[in-house]
Amino acid sequence: MAKTCDVAVIGCGAGGYQAAVTAARCGARVALIEREEAGGACLNRACLPKKALAHVASLLVQTRAFAGRGLEGGLHGDVGALLAHDGTLRDELKRGLPRHLKTLGIELIVGHAHLRDPHTIGVAGSQGFARLEARRVILAAGARPRPLAACPVDGDRVVAIDRLIPLLASEPRRLLCVGGGAAGVEAAFLFQTFGCEVTLVTHGPRLLARPVVSERAARLLERTLGESGVTIHKGVSVAATCVDGDGVTVLFDDGREGRFDRVLVAVGSAARADDIGFRALGVQCDSAGFVATAETLETSVPGIYAVGDMKGGPMTAAAALHDGRIAGENAALGAAERRNYHQVPLVIDSVLPLGAVGLSEDMAERAGFAPEVVYIPYGASAKARVQGAGPGFIEIVHDEETGQMLGGCVVGAGADELVHLLLAACRSRRGLWSLADLDYGHPTYGEDMGAALGPYLARLSRTQPMVFRPGIYARAE
Amino acid sequence: MAKTCDVAVIGCGAGGYQAAVTAARCGARVALIEREEAGGACLNRACLPKKALAHVASLLVQTRAFAGRGLEGGLHGDVGALLAHDGTLRDELKRGLPRHLKTLGIELIVGHAHLRDPHTIGVAGSQGFARLEARRVILAAGARPRPLAACPVDGDRVVAIDRLIPLLASEPRRLLCVGGGAAGVEAAFLFQTFGCEVTLVTHGPRLLARPVVSERAARLLERTLGESGVTIHKGVSVAATCVDGDGVTVLFDDGREGRFDRVLVAVGSAARADDIGFRALGVQCDSAGFVATAETLETSVPGIYAVGDMKGGPMTAAAALHDGRIAGENAALGAAERRNYHQVPLVIDSVLPLGAVGLSEDMAERAGFAPEVVYIPYGASAKARVQGAGPGFIEIVHDEETGQMLGGCVVGAGADELVHLLLAACRSRRGLWSLADLDYGHPTYGEDMGAALGPYLARLSRTQPMVFRPGIYARAE
Repeated sequence: MAKTCDVAVIGCGAGGYQAAVTAARCGARVALIEREEAGGACLNRACLPKKALAHVASLLVQTRAFAGRGLEGGLHGDVGALLAHDGTLRDELKRGLPRHLKTLGIELIVGHAHLRDPHTIGVAGSQGFARLEARRVILAAGARPRPLAACPVDGDRVVAIDRLIPLLASEPRRLLCVGGGAAGVEAAFLFQTFGCEVTLVTHGPRLLARPVVSERAARLLERTLGESGVTIHKGVSVAATCVDGDGVTVLFDDGREGRFDRVLVAVGSAARADDIGFRALGVQCDSAGFVATAETLETSVPGIYAVGDMKGGPMTAAAALHDGRIAGENAALGAAERRNYHQVPLVIDSVLPLGAVGLSEDMAERAGFAPEVVYIPYGASAKARVQGAGPGFIEIVHDEETGQMLGGCVVGAGADELVHLLLAACRSRRGLWSLADLDYGHPTYGEDMGAALGPYLARLSRTQPMVFRPGIYARAE
Repeated sequence: MAKTCDVAVIGCGAGGYQAAVTAARCGARVALIEREEAGGACLNRACLPKKALAHVASLLVQTRAFAGRGLEGGLHGDVGALLAHDGTLRDELKRGLPRHLKTLGIELIVGHAHLRDPHTIGVAGSQGFARLEARRVILAAGARPRPLAACPVDGDRVVAIDRLIPLLASEPRRLLCVGGGAAGVEAAFLFQTFGCEVTLVTHGPRLLARPVVSERAARLLERTLGESGVTIHKGVSVAATCVDGDGVTVLFDDGREGRFDRVLVAVGSAARADDIGFRALGVQCDSAGFVATAETLETSVPGIYAVGDMKGGPMTAAAALHDGRIAGENAALGAAERRNYHQVPLVIDSVLPLGAVGLSEDMAERAGFAPEVVYIPYGASAKARVQGAGPGFIEIVHDEETGQMLGGCVVGAGADELVHLLLAACRSRRGLWSLADLDYGHPTYGEDMGAALGPYLARLSRTQPMVFRPGIYARAE
C-alpha cells in the first residue's frame, strides 16, 4: 500500500532539508527521502567541516601575527586530531537532525527514490520497497564535482573537492589545487596553513570570478593568499597529468611543469546523472544539464520543483537554503514566491574571510543605478588595528542620487556576520541612513561603517524616493 | 585679542571628539580644547587598550580550547611585549587624530580651559594664555574613578581603574578586583588569562547590575568567569585594607580576610572637581555632582551642553559618542535632537563577549509591552559548535502581540558586532520580520537568529501596527 503526503522532498542536503522544514511549518504533511548521509554535502563534506577547519586555521594565522607582540610559544595544527574532533561534532549534529524532523512531523525515509509519474515515487530502501504518493515533489539531490578531462580523478592522488576531508587527512607535502573559485581558495588556505606547500592554478584572469565579488576584493585576497605562501598562477590550465608511484606529474598549458604529491580538482559543479527519473517525466534541463526552473523554482512539469545544486544558479548552501524556503512555501501552499539571489550573501572562509551581497559596482551600473562606492579600509579601523586584524576593507555600494543601498562586500575579520548588516540595509527603505543612524559599540566595524557614511549623506536628501525593483530589492512591507 | 568660533568643546575624549566632528560637519567653526592627552580615557586608558588586550586574551582562551583537538604546542601571553605593541599602535592612532581634525577645519587648542561666562573661555596653555569667544559651549571633560573609603588608592598597591595598564604591566600574582560592573569583569578576565590569580568581590547580588543585561546573561558570564579561574564573591564589600611592604591585607565585611599583591578598585565613576568653572556660571548638577542636562543635552544654562561621563547616564564610550552626535548637532544648528540610550549598544569584552541593546524583558514589561523572549543557545548553533565557541546565547526580546522588536542580548563569540543587527531590527518597522526575512550565510549566528524566529512569527500578523515611542524607539522615517 502506498504512503501519501502533500510534499515529497528528494534529498536531505541543505536545500532539501530547508524545503521540508518550510513546507511542514506551512502545514503540509512532508516526506523527506535521503539515499546516503542526511545533511548532504553541506553537513558532511563542505560548509560545516570547512567552517571548523577554517576557524582553527584562522586561529593559527591570528596567533602568529602576535608573535613577539604579546604571544609567546608556538602552535601548530594537528590535522588528525582536528579531523577526529570535527567528525565527532558532525556526528552529534547529524544525530540531532532526524529528531528535529520528527518534532516537525516530517517523515524521513532512507532509500533511493525514483519518480514514476509526477505524483508517485518509488523508494528502494534497506527495509525493502515503498511507494509514496505526493501532491507535489521537490527535487533536491545535489550535483557532482565537474570533471576535468586533462586531470582525471583517481580518488587517491587526484581527487575532486568532495574528497577534501580525506585529502586533508592524507597530509600531502605538495598540493596542486586546480580552480580559483571559492572552493579552490578555501582549500588552498587550509592546506597551506596546516603545513602543506600549495600551488593554485586558475584558467581565468582573477580569483573568485563572480560578479558580486569586486575586483578589489579579489585582488586583496589573491595578494594575501600569496603572502601566506600559496603559489598562484592565473590564466593557466592543466594540459596533462601522469600519476605514478608517489605523486603526480603535471604539464600546464603555458609550458610549465610541476610535480605534486596530490592534486585537488575544484572547478565547479556538473549536473548529476538522472538516477531519480525526472527526465523521463519531461522535466527540462539547461544546456549544462541542470534542472531548469521558473523564478518560483517550479520545473517545466507542474507540481515538481527543484532547489539547490540540482538547478542552475549559485551553488552555495546559502542559495540552497533560500531555494528551500521558496520552494517549500510554494509547494506547500501553491504560492508563487520568487527566488532572488541578490539577497543571498556569499561567504567564503579563507585567509581573509569574505562576505558579499547584492550588487557590486559593475552590477549596479548595468542595472541602471548611479553607483558610488564607500571604501572603508581596515587600516583606518580602530578595532582592526588594535586586534591586529591584518588587511581588509568594507565596500558599501549605493545609488549616489538617492542613497539607496545596493550591495556591499567585506573582506577581512568578521566578514561572515557583518555582511548581514549590509543586507539588512539593502532591504531597508532608509538605505544608507539605516546604517548611518545606528549607534554602534566602540570600537567595532559597525562603527567604522556608520562613520564613513557621513560625508556621502551630507549631499543627499532623506526624502528622495528609492527605486525598489522586484528581482533586485523588493520594497519591504 | 580673542579668537572666535561657533562651538567650543572642552575635552577631547570620545564624546568631545564626536561633538566637535559633528558640529564641524554641520557647518560650524569649531574649537576643541584638551588639557592632557587627546583621545581621553577611551583611547588612552580604556576602550582601545582593552579591546586589544581582550582580543589577545581571547585568542589564548580559544586556542586552549583546541588543545588535543587540533592545535598542538603552547602559547602564553607576554604582557610586556603586548603593552609595548599596544602603546605603539595607540601612538599611531593618536597621531592621526589632529590631522583628521585639521581636515575638518577644527582648531585643536592644547591647554586648561576655564569658563568666564557662557560665551568666553580662558585657556592656559604651554604657549601662554588665550581667550576664546564661542556662541555655544560643549562640556566634555569626563569623570574620575569613584573612590572607596575602605580601600583608598595609593597609586601603587591599590589603584583605580584608570591605572589598569600600569597595573597590568606590574604583573601581580594575586589581584583583588573590587567591583562587579563591566570594568571589573573585563579586568578580572584580563588578569586571570595573563596568569594572575584573581579574586573579584562585588557588593551586589549579581555581576553587571544593569537593567539591559538580563539575569541569564549575568549568570552565564559569572559561571564562565568562575570556570576560567576567577574567584567571585557576591554581596561582599571591602571593610578595611592595610598596605605594607609587599602587598595588601584586606578585611571583608563578611569576616573573610585576604592577602593580595595588588588591589584594583573598579566601582564606577564620580563627578570630577569643577576646575573648568561651569558651576560658578550656574550650571546645575545632580545629587551625585554630575552635570544635569535636558534630553537635548543642554544644561540649565542656555547654550552650554554636556556630553559623556561629565553628566549622568550610562558611562560608556558608545553613550559618549551618541551624546557627541546629539550635542554637536544641537549646538551647531540650534536643533533639538534628543538623546536616547535605549538605542546605544552596551558591549563588554571579557571571557564571553557581551552585547546588549534596547529593552530587556523586565524593562519591556515595565514599559507596558507584552514581552516574549526568543532564546537561542550556542549549543544549538552549528557555527558555535564547529568553532568550539564555548557557551553563549542570543536573546531576542519582542512584543508578543505585534512582533515588534524591543531589544536583545548576545553573550558569546561575535557579540560585539551581532548586537548591531538586533539594534537595526529594533529600529525597523518590520520588527522580527526584518530578521526572519533575511537570507544569511551558512553557517552563521545570523542564520541561527533567523531560524529561531519561525515558530514565533507563525502566530503573528505582518500588518499588526507596532508601538513606536519617542524615547524608546522612534518610528524610522
